[in-house]
Amino acid sequence: MAHIDLGVQESEFPGIRGPLRFRPETGRPLLDLVEVLLRGPHSLTAGERELIAAYVSGRNECTYCCSAHSAYAAAQLDEGMPLVDQVHADPDRAPISAKLRALLRIAAAVQVSGRDVTADLVQAARTEGATDLEIHDTVLIAAAFCMFNRYVDGLGTLPAADPGWYAQASERIATHGYLPVLDR
Amino acid sequence: MAHIDLGVQESEFPGIRGPLRFRPETGRPLLDLVEVLLRGPHSLTAGERELIAAYVSGRNECTYCCSAHSAYAAAQLDEGMPLVDQVHADPDRAPISAKLRALLRIAAAVQVSGRDVTADLVQAARTEGATDLEIHDTVLIAAAFCMFNRYVDGLGTLPAADPGWYAQASERIATHGYLPVLDR
Repeated sequence: MAHIDLGVQESEFPGIRGPLRFRPETGRPLLDLVEVLLRGPHSLTAGERELIAAYVSGRNECTYCCSAHSAYAAAQLDEGMPLVDQVHADPDRAPISAKLRALLRIAAAVQVSGRDVTADLVQAARTEGATDLEIHDTVLIAAAFCMFNRYVDGLGTLPAADPGWYAQASERIATHGYLPVLDR
Repeated sequence: MAHIDLGVQESEFPGIRGPLRFRPETGRPLLDLVEVLLRGPHSLTAGERELIAAYVSGRNECTYCCSAHSAYAAAQLDEGMPLVDQVHADPDRAPISAKLRALLRIAAAVQVSGRDVTADLVQAARTEGATDLEIHDTVLIAAAFCMFNRYVDGLGTLPAADPGWYAQASERIATHGYLPVLDR
């Protein structure tokens, strides 16, 4: 049970869904942010950006966010959940592009501290073809999930009791995005 | 110099100001979020909420964010910068309310990991009179600054070269808030 009364049935609104409803004044800009970062027009696919979010959430051991964004990534990557699992297990060996691997290394540094992002890590991504916008968004996606993970776990919310919930949610996210989350 | 070309004179736009301009599509929801969290109608004063932001930024060793939000807190607290300095040095002995002290302990836990927020920490804040909304917003302010700090440092931005910049910025923030930051 969450640390505060979120005013919702937690079984119906797992993870961040309860806090977003408890405080829609903050929920709205949070959803606006994640919609731009993970689904806005971009040279990285939505699946690749969800993979960065899932990877950081895994490193922060946030069960809800890691389960949710792993499902959202799997739903939008041709290789599906097997690839997501490989990235969680060992991004250095997972069959992803050299560019995405270099961006995941930046994300891993951000997860520890922004000050861990070195010029060498950035140069390595650039050598693999990463643009300034891709590097910027990788840093901000990783930083944003260091916020979302702390928000979800800091309030003691529960992950979904039924693992099937994430797959169902992934279909809605892939089709309609994040903005309607507060309305349904 | 920042890791990417932010397209601005960094001396004119230190810290987060460059990245906000580089990517206004994400800058806008970030400013919307911080305006609600730190300046929206609330039972905690703007000065108290800026103090939580400054405290977390100090623990993340983010020079720009810590300097900026310490100045913004000082500008909006009767006790000014001496109190802010005492909170950074030792929140357990700083002359603040028992409620704010309990909320700072929750913020300190969030800074490490959301999973470090215990039912006991939350109960201690509640015993000192903290409401569910105050506990929620403390968790989200602390989590949000774990994002902002990583965003600012992960892109290798520079803090202000002139320490007087923060005091000048604090007057504009205290008067006009965060929303016009992208426009000036």
